[in-house]
Amino acid sequence: MQRHFEQEIEKLKTLLIKMSSLAEDAIAKSIRAMLEKQPSIAQQVVDQDTAINLMEVEIDQAVVDLLALQQPVATDLRFILAASKINNDLERIGDHAVNIAESARKFSEISTIEPVVDIPQMSQITKAMLRDSIDGFIHSNTALCLAVLKNDDLIDELNKKVVNELVEAIRKNPKMVEEALEIIRVSRNLERVADLATNIAEEVIFIREARVVKHHLEDPKKK
Amino acid sequence: MQRHFEQEIEKLKTLLIKMSSLAEDAIAKSIRAMLEKQPSIAQQVVDQDTAINLMEVEIDQAVVDLLALQQPVATDLRFILAASKINNDLERIGDHAVNIAESARKFSEISTIEPVVDIPQMSQITKAMLRDSIDGFIHSNTALCLAVLKNDDLIDELNKKVVNELVEAIRKNPKMVEEALEIIRVSRNLERVADLATNIAEEVIFIREARVVKHHLEDPKKK
Repeated sequence: MQRHFEQEIEKLKTLLIKMSSLAEDAIAKSIRAMLEKQPSIAQQVVDQDTAINLMEVEIDQAVVDLLALQQPVATDLRFILAASKINNDLERIGDHAVNIAESARKFSEISTIEPVVDIPQMSQITKAMLRDSIDGFIHSNTALCLAVLKNDDLIDELNKKVVNELVEAIRKNPKMVEEALEIIRVSRNLERVADLATNIAEEVIFIREARVVKHHLEDPKKK
Repeated sequence: MQRHFEQEIEKLKTLLIKMSSLAEDAIAKSIRAMLEKQPSIAQQVVDQDTAINLMEVEIDQAVVDLLALQQPVATDLRFILAASKINNDLERIGDHAVNIAESARKFSEISTIEPVVDIPQMSQITKAMLRDSIDGFIHSNTALCLAVLKNDDLIDELNKKVVNELVEAIRKNPKMVEEALEIIRVSRNLERVADLATNIAEEVIFIREARVVKHHLEDPKKK
């Protein structure tokens, strides 16, 4: 029984790693579609979202099976519930990639300008946050997760900078309002992805240390 | 044991109803702060978000206790896992109310214009969607939940309308770009709240009918 349980947990971890790769790939592709103004890549992101959605259902089922058949307690129970939440977060990251892809498609139709320089950097940091939060979960590595929390502040700042720059640009040249709004939408979606990676990192710290980092009742950044 | 279990389930339901009231109240207040340009009401929303966050932790704990002590299976297990997801959705709705409150605060500082006429209507529909989805969950009422899914399309359309109107307004008067962006942000946050209410409704239909409505593998709107 115990051995079977461990196998099931390993299977759950493998599924989450696979889902996280899909989500990361979707973000990378959607940003590429934006930067290179390639609507065909944007379309791939929309099409591939079905795979992420199906995987969410598969992981949900694995969670139900583990809980029903193995009736775990204490640490194992917390781990499985965290996996269920992370599953949900990853599916939402997929949705944000679709939002970015939609903006990329519209941007490539109407754009006369280049996307602002901060978007590639935001995307790099956000993808790294996602990878680190999942690695942190799989390997119970809280150090990785604390680094994710720090980067979230950086992404918030970059997002504000992007919005402010585009507000100025629109003031100078109101004709570009539509394309500027699409860049703002991309920036805000990346900021939401960073928030979701932060959720995952907080969840890991929570199950490792059984503290509620989540709502900053205790703020790990200040340690 | 069975009687105790039922009591714990009732307690979980009561907590979710309370949390949902807090979330609905936060949305209502944040929109009022925007429409009446009252930064003090916006501040209340930010302050009261702590109560929503603490309640999320409390409900999470109730879920862990139920799973660990009662080891439910089948329908009960699905219900408890759904409660856990809905808990998470409600907490996110609270975060969107805070986003709206932040926009309301900024809007009240800089605004020379009135918020567009569609915002109050969007807010009314969104609050009703939230209430119906939670009622649908508590009373296992799928009819209510199917109505929520239909309203989600309406909110998507209203959001697009708001964005298009403001794009035109900015083109005509680029000086108002900053305040227009805040209205767009409010509209998009309401649209996200409607999405989360839709998530809840889909979850209810899922546990009631054990079908994956969620990712529109089967689309209940088309019935």
